[in-house]
Amino acid sequence: MSQTMKVAIMNTVGKLDFEQKPLPQVKDDDVLIKLDYVGICGSDMHLFENGFIGEKHVTEPIVLGHEPGGIVEAVGKNVTSLKPGDRVAVEPGIPCYTCDYCKSGRYNLCPHVYFYASLPVLEGCFAEYISHPANLCFKLPDNVSTLEGALMEPLAVGMHAALQSGAQVGSSAVILGAGAIGLLTMLSLKSMGVSTITVVDLVQNRLDKAKELGCTHTINASETNAIEAVMSLTGGEGADYVFETAGSEATIMQTAKLVKRGGTIVLVGYTSSGKAQMHVNNIIDNEVTIKTVFRYRNIYPKAIEAVASGSIPLKAIVSDVFEFSRIQEAMEKAIQHKDKVTKCVIRIHD
Amino acid sequence: MSQTMKVAIMNTVGKLDFEQKPLPQVKDDDVLIKLDYVGICGSDMHLFENGFIGEKHVTEPIVLGHEPGGIVEAVGKNVTSLKPGDRVAVEPGIPCYTCDYCKSGRYNLCPHVYFYASLPVLEGCFAEYISHPANLCFKLPDNVSTLEGALMEPLAVGMHAALQSGAQVGSSAVILGAGAIGLLTMLSLKSMGVSTITVVDLVQNRLDKAKELGCTHTINASETNAIEAVMSLTGGEGADYVFETAGSEATIMQTAKLVKRGGTIVLVGYTSSGKAQMHVNNIIDNEVTIKTVFRYRNIYPKAIEAVASGSIPLKAIVSDVFEFSRIQEAMEKAIQHKDKVTKCVIRIHD
Amino acid sequence: MSQTMKVAIMNTVGKLDFEQKPLPQVKDDDVLIKLDYVGICGSDMHLFENGFIGEKHVTEPIVLGHEPGGIVEAVGKNVTSLKPGDRVAVEPGIPCYTCDYCKSGRYNLCPHVYFYASLPVLEGCFAEYISHPANLCFKLPDNVSTLEGALMEPLAVGMHAALQSGAQVGSSAVILGAGAIGLLTMLSLKSMGVSTITVVDLVQNRLDKAKELGCTHTINASETNAIEAVMSLTGGEGADYVFETAGSEATIMQTAKLVKRGGTIVLVGYTSSGKAQMHVNNIIDNEVTIKTVFRYRNIYPKAIEAVASGSIPLKAIVSDVFEFSRIQEAMEKAIQHKDKVTKCVIRIHD
Amino acid sequence: MSQTMKVAIMNTVGKLDFEQKPLPQVKDDDVLIKLDYVGICGSDMHLFENGFIGEKHVTEPIVLGHEPGGIVEAVGKNVTSLKPGDRVAVEPGIPCYTCDYCKSGRYNLCPHVYFYASLPVLEGCFAEYISHPANLCFKLPDNVSTLEGALMEPLAVGMHAALQSGAQVGSSAVILGAGAIGLLTMLSLKSMGVSTITVVDLVQNRLDKAKELGCTHTINASETNAIEAVMSLTGGEGADYVFETAGSEATIMQTAKLVKRGGTIVLVGYTSSGKAQMHVNNIIDNEVTIKTVFRYRNIYPKAIEAVASGSIPLKAIVSDVFEFSRIQEAMEKAIQHKDKVTKCVIRIHD
Repeated sequence: MSQTMKVAIMNTVGKLDFEQKPLPQVKDDDVLIKLDYVGICGSDMHLFENGFIGEKHVTEPIVLGHEPGGIVEAVGKNVTSLKPGDRVAVEPGIPCYTCDYCKSGRYNLCPHVYFYASLPVLEGCFAEYISHPANLCFKLPDNVSTLEGALMEPLAVGMHAALQSGAQVGSSAVILGAGAIGLLTMLSLKSMGVSTITVVDLVQNRLDKAKELGCTHTINASETNAIEAVMSLTGGEGADYVFETAGSEATIMQTAKLVKRGGTIVLVGYTSSGKAQMHVNNIIDNEVTIKTVFRYRNIYPKAIEAVASGSIPLKAIVSDVFEFSRIQEAMEKAIQHKDKVTKCVIRIHD
Repeated sequence: MSQTMKVAIMNTVGKLDFEQKPLPQVKDDDVLIKLDYVGICGSDMHLFENGFIGEKHVTEPIVLGHEPGGIVEAVGKNVTSLKPGDRVAVEPGIPCYTCDYCKSGRYNLCPHVYFYASLPVLEGCFAEYISHPANLCFKLPDNVSTLEGALMEPLAVGMHAALQSGAQVGSSAVILGAGAIGLLTMLSLKSMGVSTITVVDLVQNRLDKAKELGCTHTINASETNAIEAVMSLTGGEGADYVFETAGSEATIMQTAKLVKRGGTIVLVGYTSSGKAQMHVNNIIDNEVTIKTVFRYRNIYPKAIEAVASGSIPLKAIVSDVFEFSRIQEAMEKAIQHKDKVTKCVIRIHD
Repeated sequence: MSQTMKVAIMNTVGKLDFEQKPLPQVKDDDVLIKLDYVGICGSDMHLFENGFIGEKHVTEPIVLGHEPGGIVEAVGKNVTSLKPGDRVAVEPGIPCYTCDYCKSGRYNLCPHVYFYASLPVLEGCFAEYISHPANLCFKLPDNVSTLEGALMEPLAVGMHAALQSGAQVGSSAVILGAGAIGLLTMLSLKSMGVSTITVVDLVQNRLDKAKELGCTHTINASETNAIEAVMSLTGGEGADYVFETAGSEATIMQTAKLVKRGGTIVLVGYTSSGKAQMHVNNIIDNEVTIKTVFRYRNIYPKAIEAVASGSIPLKAIVSDVFEFSRIQEAMEKAIQHKDKVTKCVIRIHD
Repeated sequence: MSQTMKVAIMNTVGKLDFEQKPLPQVKDDDVLIKLDYVGICGSDMHLFENGFIGEKHVTEPIVLGHEPGGIVEAVGKNVTSLKPGDRVAVEPGIPCYTCDYCKSGRYNLCPHVYFYASLPVLEGCFAEYISHPANLCFKLPDNVSTLEGALMEPLAVGMHAALQSGAQVGSSAVILGAGAIGLLTMLSLKSMGVSTITVVDLVQNRLDKAKELGCTHTINASETNAIEAVMSLTGGEGADYVFETAGSEATIMQTAKLVKRGGTIVLVGYTSSGKAQMHVNNIIDNEVTIKTVFRYRNIYPKAIEAVASGSIPLKAIVSDVFEFSRIQEAMEKAIQHKDKVTKCVIRIHD
């Protein structure tokens, strides 16, 4: 095995260069993973296109990518849970384990987390290998591929959104936005028995994908008034759960008019201004709960089981697979054709 | 429409007689329902066979049956939610609505509830018509039959058990007992995304039915040590959720050895002595939670949606359908062939 | 006993007239209550001053008042839980009992509720007698007065707010607004063991009251930057729970900056525009939950116990007591001296 | 500072010897603590008296004690949260941090935990110094003493029991057993606003202590039928929450008869047989929940706040303080006079 590896580095905003780097060091509790697939996330696209996210700016070369799936190549001396050859999904954020958030099980809120390709962290997964703590690498069952392993990361976001809502079997949901997170939220809700799921978007192509993946209704908000359409579908009551994944001020404003009295809104998408207006009196009058989603916690084992058991047809969200050598083209296509690219994945190794 | 109806009355323990009775009075908030199907429940069988249940004895003629599905024939003057011709599932317990239990949403615990064929209530549903409060009659969608409507009652028990456990997508469960309630708990868990479900019983026939309905593993406890088998299936950890539906002291004793550390036991089945021994130190050491199930509450709308959406193949639990005229034979078969009769249903009208 | 009673009617906005009206009819499940005290609520003041609330306008004579405490004078024929002479607190909203909200224990969301002095309901409690369902009248222990009985209604709002937050012993809270609801939320939180409670207001007088009632810190936001002050008090972390009772867009905007990562905001106060802007990105990044409060449910028994046990010094929030004959003056003072009048109560009978 | 310290070692069951041992090594994330006080726990007494606990036997010299409070003497190089001179309470179990239990916040269930004086761990706190991870050492506010710091450990058990029950303000509880854990459960419930708390024991002395600490009722079960007495106090309904801390089969059997319909039983005490019989049919019929308590998790910060704020008069449970030199006598007295010794604490340093 070579002691160096190929890495795609963003030395300039919007441009990925390949460099040879030393293999990462494998600490005692780590495993070295030869990556098979790495998904492209919206945050990768945003950093690639704009060079910043929120108030954090890229000022140094950075490796993007935080949705990895691969095969264990070597293990640190303390590792007993995994062995070379095991196929794994990787949770890309390493929490401190000992702060109050970590100890109370909300490690996604750990202020000390080290999360790939998340400023100020400059390390990412568009590389041939990563070394990662074994406790955050989850062995895949035989019937789950490393492509699906890579997709566990965005699925974890969608499933965390679904779980945050408290959605129960036999209930109804509306999802605003049919991007990857909206679709994965939908698949998660479906796997939990939510029986009526309406997906709203402006792009017909995405809605067709949502329908193909099994939602019960779609609304093209460029043609139809979404609030009227949902009210019509729900007998004027609204949906038990409303998920906002579009991240626009307009759709956040709509949530209060789409949710049923006593229901729950889940906010997932960020706005570009950081703010949004809400119909607070309606929300109070209807005693609506608003939950929010920051990454995920304790989801991978559940997500892997759900995929393995056939409840979630995870692979079906992938629209594009590019070889590692064509990653520049992949990023550009993903950004320029958001309407067509549901999920783009890079194949690092075959 | 005739002013009388045919009713099957148990004047003597173990013997059902047909009598003509006046149609029930339809109060202002009631609907009159022409029954299509009524399921036979274990408690009907127990009263038929033994003349008592727990400490309550049958001392007067009683009409059994509390799992009705039918068609609205007429509505009381206050009723706007239903109209003649609507097909309905019927929740057979009428709570007082105003006690603390009712007002806090736990109306299944209402001490004043009037529940069909539940001593001291002598009224039941093995009759051509019942009159019932409209708020407890649930309109069935077009793709759900009145046979399935009748089965909503036992499904509600199984779904309440599943919900009491707090079971999450991607988790594992063991169900002790593959009778109707065990199977309906299994179907409910499956609809909620529980991915690994092991059903344990002594009768292979019932286990075959469980497998046919979609559980992942079965254990025939007459041949195999159930605890060892479950430990083997779960890597020595036990199941996240253990449901006891068999109602024997031996299986209740097993629950502590089957459940995962930090997991939940759900007790559904009664023992004949009223008591059972438990491994309390194990339960405490593993910080296990024990939940219990008394009927159900607020489940019908969810259950109907789950069946309508295809998540629960409810009809498949029915093993026997008898015409109303052959109800004596039906009861006898259900009691004598518990190994073969998963669920017996009486067809009152075609 | 006379067959008529004195009632204060608002025939014209801002003017209360006394009229003699027949005693209310006592239905079979009702009790007739001779009122001792009725509190003046903010909504009474708003209707008195403006003739509307939200989008509902007063177009007919209306009796205000919905915070009654009194003594049972007579009982309907079905009533066994109360008898003449019993002193009671009264829950002023009568739900339908049979809709899905009622049956699931969330009767405060019942769309059919009949709530005193809440348009379109024109009946209220500024009257010598009311007749009310026995199940919504709660007998007071010997050591709780009918004045405190009247105050159970606003206490129920504050306690529902506290319970909605899920606040735990040993945690911290910030309350924006030191009006009656803010103070009663504070007292409720204190009774639940919340150990650090900071109250923010613009009026020093109200803050002094909050301090007298036992909050740990006060912030006068007319002099001090509330966000900086709270951050200083909490080591830069923010409070576990933030309650917004002031009902201004500015304070709603502040909540996101006051709450701890992973914490909970509870919205209680309405804005005059019906809308408010929020820092949604901060809220999502910190995975904050937002809960809301519409009236209350299943709180009276708990609230009465808490007052009876000495946990909540309820009487201490009363700043003014007026005789019934001086109700016009009482309303005017309550409106004109909001800074001084914490809670004004009308004494109907001695 | 000396490089050795005095340690009390149990070389023989029932006999503590003092030995000089090297000071513990302070790892990078540790703090060295000079102990002021260490409480004697029931498990210390059991090991001292019997040489075993459950199925684990003492086969080597062991240092007992796991309820330490003291002053930071030195800190490891990574520690920033504490400094020499800080007074601390110490959580005596060190979990692995990375297993599924730890990551989901239930670190008390970590199968890899290292817990002082808990076989096979032979290290304990009856010593002049301990070295412990900083994240498990909690700085005490100025108004909380290191004696109270030592008592945080048993308080954490009682508070975890109280929190496991979900007890709400204004509710009622019965506690079986007035030992230290029973009393600390009582104080925790009181701090959370539980308004009616009945303590049951066979020893009048303990009940007097419970009364002095603020419970509302006591029942001496050697004189009075506890079930009848509780039913009489609760109008025949039973208590919302029943805590079993006595650890006898008889009291576990009683719980089902003491709890209110829909209520919760919390099992804390172990039985000597490991088993107990329960009235399972009653428990199911009343849809009772059973929760259990294994140590505690995420409680220390809450407990310290509750004590600092004055909600819990923690010091008042101490009946006996012995100097370290008299620890043999202390253990003997604690064992021989269980009726009089509520809580015995060893003063290691002044």
